Amino acid sequence: MSALRLSAEPLAGLPEVAPGDDLAEIVARASARSAPAIEDGDVIVISQKVVSKSEGRLRPLADVQPSDRAHDLARTLGKDPRTVQVVLDESTEVLRAERGVLITRTRHGLVCANAGVDQSNVPGEDVVCLLPIDPDASARKIRARLRGLLGAAPAVVVADSFGRAWRLGQADVAIGCAGLAPLDDRRGGRDAEGRELTATIDAVADEAASAAALARDKAGREAVVVIRGLERYVTDDDGAGAAAIVRPRDEDMFT
Amino acid sequence: MSALRLSAEPLAGLPEVAPGDDLAEIVARASARSAPAIEDGDVIVISQKVVSKSEGRLRPLADVQPSDRAHDLARTLGKDPRTVQVVLDESTEVLRAERGVLITRTRHGLVCANAGVDQSNVPGEDVVCLLPIDPDASARKIRARLRGLLGAAPAVVVADSFGRAWRLGQADVAIGCAGLAPLDDRRGGRDAEGRELTATIDAVADEAASAAALARDKAGREAVVVIRGLERYVTDDDGAGAAAIVRPRDEDMFT
Repeated sequence: MSALRLSAEPLAGLPEVAPGDDLAEIVARASARSAPAIEDGDVIVISQKVVSKSEGRLRPLADVQPSDRAHDLARTLGKDPRTVQVVLDESTEVLRAERGVLITRTRHGLVCANAGVDQSNVPGEDVVCLLPIDPDASARKIRARLRGLLGAAPAVVVADSFGRAWRLGQADVAIGCAGLAPLDDRRGGRDAEGRELTATIDAVADEAASAAALARDKAGREAVVVIRGLERYVTDDDGAGAAAIVRPRDEDMFT
Repeated sequence: MSALRLSAEPLAGLPEVAPGDDLAEIVARASARSAPAIEDGDVIVISQKVVSKSEGRLRPLADVQPSDRAHDLARTLGKDPRTVQVVLDESTEVLRAERGVLITRTRHGLVCANAGVDQSNVPGEDVVCLLPIDPDASARKIRARLRGLLGAAPAVVVADSFGRAWRLGQADVAIGCAGLAPLDDRRGGRDAEGRELTATIDAVADEAASAAALARDKAGREAVVVIRGLERYVTDDDGAGAAAIVRPRDEDMFT
């Protein structure tokens, strides 16, 4: 048994989440029924979808009036022009619109397909789910409320599945976090040979999101995963959040 | 306790690995000393560095004669021209050479910095370590040998740390694998609302590599991590390998 042993386990018994629900209370209630209960040093990885739902970030397509640009893009891509309009509303920049794929930069600076807008696991026909307005703020709010309810302040990560430029498939990344070092900068450290490490910054929060993705059943309602073994990255203050992971626009070499 | 609980634990007591070493035997010996021992259904994530070392993929820079192009790039980037030459030798295409960063497509089709060539955790001055010639073949070979030594055939993943186009920090990905479904294609499945899932292919092997990265101490000698809880993705045959994760050149929208 190693000090660095990592475990990831979904929180059982979560109900369907609806707009206005107190997500932290739902998590705290499920934690009370689970053993071991959530404690300081844990990392709670929550699917973006339930965070967005609790915040009412749902948009009925019937209310959407597509612009000419949305109509044009929709025609090119074979998409619903109303969905394209919602994606445009959530974005600052369209990076690629080809092969049925719409890749944009969101208002948060995230580069992903459809600005994170999607329809899976959303109740009702013709309703789409948007990313939280400020996923770091969402994580901080949930963490503060968990602290009040549980007397423990686990780190909170808001995770979503993103495609990658040169690799197939999607991997979960952190779009929001509180109380977890998003990046572990080991530059200046030494390797086992005593040589200085170069260019080594570990994407801790993204890797935690990916580990959590492997522990949960995405088709089901396992929207919350508890990770143990990352205590060394959990901080008392909320920290810089996942905004710190976004590569600044002027350092982007690929758009 | 959930059926999907995931755990990742480094294999303790690995020695320094040198060219010609039988890596599977080293892993099997460490497994015999660890409890619980490696078994069918486990996923063994091995750092690329030790795989490369065991295969003798080390190149002394003293033997390298930089070309004019390597000298030019080295001057622009502030790098050692001999290292740049090694990177060029490992690559089919230079994608970006700016800000001190050299991003290429390797002979395997991987897009990463410096073609995966690096100097950290390599013994001796002025020796660089290259990626395995065929990391999927490396994984298959280690798996076959483990099957012989242990009577169990865990999946094997060869992992390396890659940067990402729009996100800071590095996350571990699978550059080779055997016996693990590299991608879980859930298109055509249904979400909790019974709606058909779209565009949902999970990058299982990459997420496993990322989970393992969180469990080990990169500066130390914890080059092998055992993941439990992914039995549903472990296959008897070796499968398509991590080559299946590489986005085909003609579907690349960003280079």
